[in-house]
Formats: sequence, C-alpha cells, structure tokens
Amino acid sequence: MSHLKLISCASRVLSGAAVRSEYEFISGIQFGSTKHSVRTMSKDADRAITMGNINPNILALEYAVRGPLVMRAADIQKELDKGAQKPFKTVIRANIGDAHAMGQKPITFIRQVLACITCPSLIENGDFPSDVKQKAKDILQACGGNSVGAYSVSHGIEMIRRSVAEYIERRDGHPADWQNICLTGGASSGIKYCLQLLCNNIGGKPSGVMIPIPQYPLYSASLAEYALGQVGYYLDEAAGWALTEKELERSLAEGMKKYNVRALVIINPGNPTGQVLTRENIELIIKFAKKHKLFLFADEVYQDNVYAEGSKFFSFKKVMTEMGAPYNKIELASFMSVSKGYMGECGLRGGWMELCNLDPGVQANLYKAISAMLCPTTLGQAVVECVARPPKEGDESYELWHKEKSDVLSSLAHRANMIVETFNKMEGFTCNTVQGAMYAFPQFKLSQKAIDAAQKEGKKPDVFYAFKLLEESGICIIPGSGFGQAPNTWHFRTTILPQPELLAQMLDVFQKFHAKFTKEFA
Amino acid sequence: MSHLKLISCASRVLSGAAVRSEYEFISGIQFGSTKHSVRTMSKDADRAITMGNINPNILALEYAVRGPLVMRAADIQKELDKGAQKPFKTVIRANIGDAHAMGQKPITFIRQVLACITCPSLIENGDFPSDVKQKAKDILQACGGNSVGAYSVSHGIEMIRRSVAEYIERRDGHPADWQNICLTGGASSGIKYCLQLLCNNIGGKPSGVMIPIPQYPLYSASLAEYALGQVGYYLDEAAGWALTEKELERSLAEGMKKYNVRALVIINPGNPTGQVLTRENIELIIKFAKKHKLFLFADEVYQDNVYAEGSKFFSFKKVMTEMGAPYNKIELASFMSVSKGYMGECGLRGGWMELCNLDPGVQANLYKAISAMLCPTTLGQAVVECVARPPKEGDESYELWHKEKSDVLSSLAHRANMIVETFNKMEGFTCNTVQGAMYAFPQFKLSQKAIDAAQKEGKKPDVFYAFKLLEESGICIIPGSGFGQAPNTWHFRTTILPQPELLAQMLDVFQKFHAKFTKEFA
Repeated sequence: MSHLKLISCASRVLSGAAVRSEYEFISGIQFGSTKHSVRTMSKDADRAITMGNINPNILALEYAVRGPLVMRAADIQKELDKGAQKPFKTVIRANIGDAHAMGQKPITFIRQVLACITCPSLIENGDFPSDVKQKAKDILQACGGNSVGAYSVSHGIEMIRRSVAEYIERRDGHPADWQNICLTGGASSGIKYCLQLLCNNIGGKPSGVMIPIPQYPLYSASLAEYALGQVGYYLDEAAGWALTEKELERSLAEGMKKYNVRALVIINPGNPTGQVLTRENIELIIKFAKKHKLFLFADEVYQDNVYAEGSKFFSFKKVMTEMGAPYNKIELASFMSVSKGYMGECGLRGGWMELCNLDPGVQANLYKAISAMLCPTTLGQAVVECVARPPKEGDESYELWHKEKSDVLSSLAHRANMIVETFNKMEGFTCNTVQGAMYAFPQFKLSQKAIDAAQKEGKKPDVFYAFKLLEESGICIIPGSGFGQAPNTWHFRTTILPQPELLAQMLDVFQKFHAKFTKEFA
Repeated sequence: MSHLKLISCASRVLSGAAVRSEYEFISGIQFGSTKHSVRTMSKDADRAITMGNINPNILALEYAVRGPLVMRAADIQKELDKGAQKPFKTVIRANIGDAHAMGQKPITFIRQVLACITCPSLIENGDFPSDVKQKAKDILQACGGNSVGAYSVSHGIEMIRRSVAEYIERRDGHPADWQNICLTGGASSGIKYCLQLLCNNIGGKPSGVMIPIPQYPLYSASLAEYALGQVGYYLDEAAGWALTEKELERSLAEGMKKYNVRALVIINPGNPTGQVLTRENIELIIKFAKKHKLFLFADEVYQDNVYAEGSKFFSFKKVMTEMGAPYNKIELASFMSVSKGYMGECGLRGGWMELCNLDPGVQANLYKAISAMLCPTTLGQAVVECVARPPKEGDESYELWHKEKSDVLSSLAHRANMIVETFNKMEGFTCNTVQGAMYAFPQFKLSQKAIDAAQKEGKKPDVFYAFKLLEESGICIIPGSGFGQAPNTWHFRTTILPQPELLAQMLDVFQKFHAKFTKEFA
C-alpha cells in the first residue's frame, strides 16, 4: 500500500477541501514501503498530528515553483556535485525568477548602503560615495536606537513609506498617501494578508477570488490555505494574453454559483505569461471591477520589467485615477517587490503594498493583523528605500547606478527576444512576445504517443515532458499545469534569466532535446 | 453613533467568532463623527470589504504588545518632538523586547559579517578580522550565484541548518538532525505555521491549544486568526510562575468540553513572567503531554537569557531525550530567534525551529506550505549562522565577541535585579524574581476608587493604570490584561531593557507616579 493511498483514505474523512493528489503523486518523496507505512499507521494512534487530522487546507495547497520537479533538480545537482556522469554538467534553474542565482550582479548602490547600515563604522571609515553614506545615515536616523537591529513599526519605517509614496507620485503623476503604503517582506506576505481579509462565509457561501489562468501559484496556494474559492478566468493567448470582458463575465457567473466572488487578481506585467496590459485593457478591467464591486489585487511587481517596443506599464492606480468618478473609488491593493525589476534582490525580502479606498476600519484591522508579526526585515525595508529614492543626477553614485540598471534591463530585453525567437522556430511551438516580466510561456504540441507514455507513468503530459527535459538535459522549467492552462493545451514557464551565454547554450540543448523527443514520440 | 457601535452592529451578523471590542474600545482610533459614520455606512454598499463582511477572525485578533497604548505612546513622542510641554522629555518604551531600540549595542562580529556578505568587495579590501572574512565567504558560497540576493531553499540554507543542528548538539549533548531544522524569519512565522497545521474540525469540534496565562499575545492573536480554540492554563504566581499538574489537568478537561485539545504551548524562559522552569517541572509537562497526546510547542527564544543564581536553561528536547521511551517520542517543535539572547537583532528577522518526531508526511506538508512564501531573509539566516557557529577561542574575533556577549548578559542580570527590588519596595506591589527572559510582570493592588474610575472611562483597571502612567510619566508598559491574568488581579509587563542609567531614572519616576496615584485613589 503506497503512501498515496494512505493519504487518499485519510482525505475521505476530511471535511471541506478536496485533497489534490498531484503533490504526493509526482513528488518523488518516498514515505516508505508497505512495511513502513503500516508501522507509520500503527504509530498514528500516538501522534497529535497525522495525515488524517492535519489541516486539510495545508494538504490541498500546492506550489509548483518549488514543487517536486524542483526537488528532483536539486537532487540531480547533488549527484553531479558528487561526480555522477550525465549528458550535462550542471542543472540550469530556469524554474524561478531568481536573477542573482543566475548570475545577475547586484546594484552597487544598494549593497553599499546595506553594508553601511549594518556596520555603521563604515560610514566614517569606509571608502564609499557620499550619497551612500548620506542614505545610510538617513535610514539609521529612522531606526529605533539608530540600529537596524531594532523592530520597526509593523507596517514599516515612516521615512521609507514616505519615499514610496513619492516614488508612486513620480511614476503616476498623481498623489499617493504614505499612510496607505505598507512595507512587506516581499510581495507575498502582503498579498496573503489582503486575501485573508476576505475569508468569510456569508449566506452559506465562502468568498471567491478571480485569478488568471495561467496564474502565479502563490495565488492558488494561498486560496487553498485559506479555503477561499478559486475562480479562474482565462487569459486570451491568441490576443497576447489579454483579458476579455466576455471571459471575465463568464468566469464571474460561473464562480458566483459556488462562491461570493469578492475580488479580482490581475498580474501585470504577466507571470507566467509576460504580457504588458494596454491602457484600454486596464480600463475594461476597472469597469468590470466597479460593475461587480470587486476588490482589485494589482500584482505589479514587474513594473520595471517592460521590454517590447510599444509596450508601456500603466499602474491600475494611475488609470483608475484618470478615469475619474466613480472608477477612482474602487478598492485596490497594488503590490511591489525588490525581488524583481533591475534589482533582483529576492533573498533580501523587501516589498510594499499601496492600499486605495479601503474602508478605514478594514485598513486598521489589516494593520492590526500585520502587527502580530512584528515587522518586515529592516534591511529589506532599506532596499525599498534605495529603490524608491535612488541616486539622482549629480549624486556621486548616479552614473554607476544608472549604468547598472540600464545594463540589466537591456540585457533582459535582449534575452526575452532571443528566447521567443528560438521557441518559435521549434516544431510544434508557438510563443507570444515577452513584452515584460521575466518569463516565456510557450505552447507546444504533444503527440498522442507522448500523452499515452505520460499516462503510463501516471504523470500529466506536460509534467512528463518537463521531467524528461530535466533528466536528459539538466534544464529545469515548470510545466504549464502548475500555473493552469486551457484544457488540452500544453505549456511550460521558463525564466529569461540565464546570462546570455548560458541562455544560448540552454536554448541549443533545448532544441536538440525537443527534436529527439519529437522523433521518439512521433 | 460611534464607530464602536457600528462594529457591534456588524458583529451580530458574523457567524462563529465573537468580536471582542477592546481593540476599538481603547484604540483611540477615531473613525469620525456621526455624520462621517453615516457616510461610511452608506458607502458600504459600494465596497467589497466592509466591517460587516471582513474576516471575523481578523476582527477578533488582538495584539497588545503593539496595541492602542503603544500607538498613543508614539503619538506622545511625536508631540514631544514638535515641542509639546509635558512632565517628561521622552517616552520610555518598556513595552516591547526591543533591545537595540533601548540602546543595546549590536555584536560587532555579526555586523561585520553582514557588511561583508552584502558588499563582498569588503572581504578583499575591508579592514575586518580574518574569521569574519572566512564566515562571509562560507555564507556566500552557500548562496545561489554567491549572492545573498538569491532566494534560498524555503526552509533555509543547508549549511546554516547544519550549523544550527551542531549548536543544538553542543547545547543538549544529544544528536540533532539538520533536516529537522527549519530556518524562519524570527520565531513568529514558525509558530504560526505549526499552529496552522492543527486547524481542523473533527467530530464537529475545532482544535484547541493550551496556552499559559499569562502568555505572549502572539499565541492568542494567532489562535484567533486561525479560529483555533484558546485553552488557558494558569501559571502559579505564588510558586514563581511554575506549572502544576492539577492546573494542567483542570485546563485540559475544561478545554475538551468545547475543543479537540491537541497542543500545549510552553514559554521557557517565560514571557511575560520571567521564570526559568526547573528540570522537574519540565518532566512533569512532558509526562502530561505524553499522557494526553499533545503536540508540544516549546517557545525557547530566551534560552540565552538566564540570570538568577540556581536557574539553568534545559531544553524540552534535552529533557525528553534523557527521559527515554516513551517520552522521547513526543511531537515537539522548539522555537528560537536572533531577536533575543545577547544579540537582540529584532529588525533582522532570523530564527529557527527544530521539529522532533513529526509524522514524515506532516513535516513534508509543513515544508510545502512554507515554500509558497519563498524564503526567510538570507541576511536573517546569516545572523543565525553567526549565532549557531560563533567565533571559537583562538579566532581573531573571539575575545571581542566574548566580551560583548558577557557584558550584555551581565548588564541584563543587573537590571533584572534592580527592577524587582524596586517594585517589591512599592506599596501594593509584589514581583517574582526575574530568573530569565527580558521582562518583569509585577502584581499590584488597585483601590476600589481606582477601579471605579477606570470603569467610568470604559477601561479595564490595569489599562486605566497603564494609560495614566504613560500620560503622566512617559513610561510605556503593557497592562496584564494583554497577556491574561488571574481574575481580579492586576499586573503589567515591563521590559528590563532600558540601559542602567535610564532604567534608574524610569524606576524613580515610576515610584513617584505610583505614590501619587495611590494617594489620588486612596
């Protein structure tokens, strides 16, 4: 009896959430043989938390970006490190938007400021530019006891919240209130807190949230965690992953059958899809949200990552402000992170959310809930400060900062192009332009033979393809089923982050693998 | 019509959780006049999230350490900064265990390592000790792309998890498995994830968790957030805040009427109570947990903060290991943080949990849930590395590190004494020895006149006392009702963190205030 079956048995007694088996199914985590399982079962009687009485929402939660395929990739890398012979020398981790891990260099200004605030003797003695030292002094001045080791206010250091408000004003050309800015440890924690506000069961129906298909799996994972209804709307692949009113209306009507649909998530620029929404498309969405009284989650963490000619980032805040009443009054939370953009400081956990038009009591309760987690890391907040108020023309660091920023963004634009061109040359592949963000999400065809072979292994066809690719070439991408895709279509997400030389090599290996795969399963 | 009434009205339609009004009651957050409230009400029809349909658990959640009193303290400080004339020149923030904010200096070794890993050019060029440079190199080696800007594995960098396991082995004299160590952003996030595992409703009863009274309000806040049952057990103040079997059994029996009680939280050294549990007391608790199949939460974040002669820290892991079968098989999660101890690096958000005897499937699901949050800050993890594997004798940094650590701890011991002695001299006060942690939790008597005056203001008597103290002397402490206390007893928590001179001054002002208060309400 496999562990999978054990879980399935247990799931029958769980109320509410359906237990999805994919995680266990393809996880490669072996919980032991029949003997071991039986032993485990008999021990369950002694345990307070078992697979039978664990929080069912946690069982149901899935997060493909860090899932089984990625675990296997880590194991393969370990095997290689120990000298295993494989057709490749290293695993290429194209599964996650982790720029520095793929060789992107940090922005010097940010890192010098961090060094000075962690070790303030460097402000006097270190060989750093004057604007770095001034920034460090300003940040320390705003910290309790002039130390980054002190807790900050839970929603962030006031000075930095003010800097963010100024940043948004410069970006949009409209005022922003610093008291509506909440600093967070990356975007994820802010998103999760806002989702949590919605948890309720009114008239016997749980709340539902509309999310795109494909989506970034933080959303599906968090909805599962909070037992919120997941209401998918399809992005229109043929129209460059735009949103259509018809599909939004269909999705909402469908969702309303089971849930009180109360919020709509938009990811712009798109993850995993790489589109940049036009202003017209944003207006359409805002009108839809207004019409149906939906809280808008604007995931705008890739706002600096816009590459395609003719594409431009418009924040939801800007567009709704310019649309005037009644659209400028919809409830909106916009999320930003220092993990993306030109900074790529994923490990430092900095981010913010801007809250617009929230009921003051609701906002006070949100801030109250956040306060129990004490504060986001002060160093992540310091990175936010560097991003929100970077060196200005004439400052000692300006030129280097500007060059580093431009170099990163133009190289990403180059790589975005390179990857799309290559995919579109491959048999059975179509790939939309990567207008922004850090990913391509190509569609590819699979033969019936490949689909049958996948089924035989108990894998979804795109998962089967991704495992084959990993085992044979060392390239780690995430199958489309981790993000959601239209029925009977197959996709995967790859980042555009490997440095140009490695990316060229990766695309070469990829092409060869795909040709071989196509032949094998012809 | 006040906003408070609005909330009360709304609460009637909320299912499940009771809406506690204290937050709004004493919050001092003014949501506006009658007119404004009516306007807000009429606007509710347009809003997706209102006070009437917000997650009721978030409404119910309270966190006294950052509550209304603390907000008022911040406002008073702002008034002072703007030149307001008051009987004091600055607010003394004795409300939160925030060492650096109260003037404690950071440990040089930790900060030098942080500077080197954020700005690696300092490793070659900076004027830092060789062991600092080596530590920085080791950490960078363990980071993706050799950058702290890369995401780490969600449960932490393997090298650092191994360091923590070694630290625990040295501490306990027993093996620790690094794969059971999970790095976290402070202790709070680990505690919350473990609590979340328990959420379930079996046989129509929600899960319940036993927590001490008084407790650290992260627990009550998180239980409210997750709609878990809060089952309080009283610490025995007369016995130096020890746990008794009789009270544990009473509490469990009481809790079982409403909940499936599945876990027991112990805070040792105690917060807010400052006791250090004896080995015998720990054995009693472990036997109780075993008897009733309870998951043990051992909040051991103050393990380095032990001051009293004869007191010694024993980890639950050590004691249960030495008790042998069957006690060495109970499920345990032990939590640690870099915010406390001699480090006091609250703002850097580093911590870990050690998981013992978890069902492997449960542990895999816990790690899976954590993975959706990407990773704890790498810089917080780096601080954990510095704490778990500090300079050794003979290393260039050793002497300074040792001196700084000893100075902090011996000064804290001195201040613990000073504060208890003073309180025990004050009329109507009794205060147990602060054996460990960072707080005193004295009991004080209030006259009927004071209680009546409090009632007239709609405040709990200890809250009334705390607000008076703040307004008249600038000292910010947290009333006992924020932590829980035996009925009709009054306490408050103060930290022992103000530097000696400031503490002496604070205690002097406190004595004068109390004398005046006692006279006024005689």
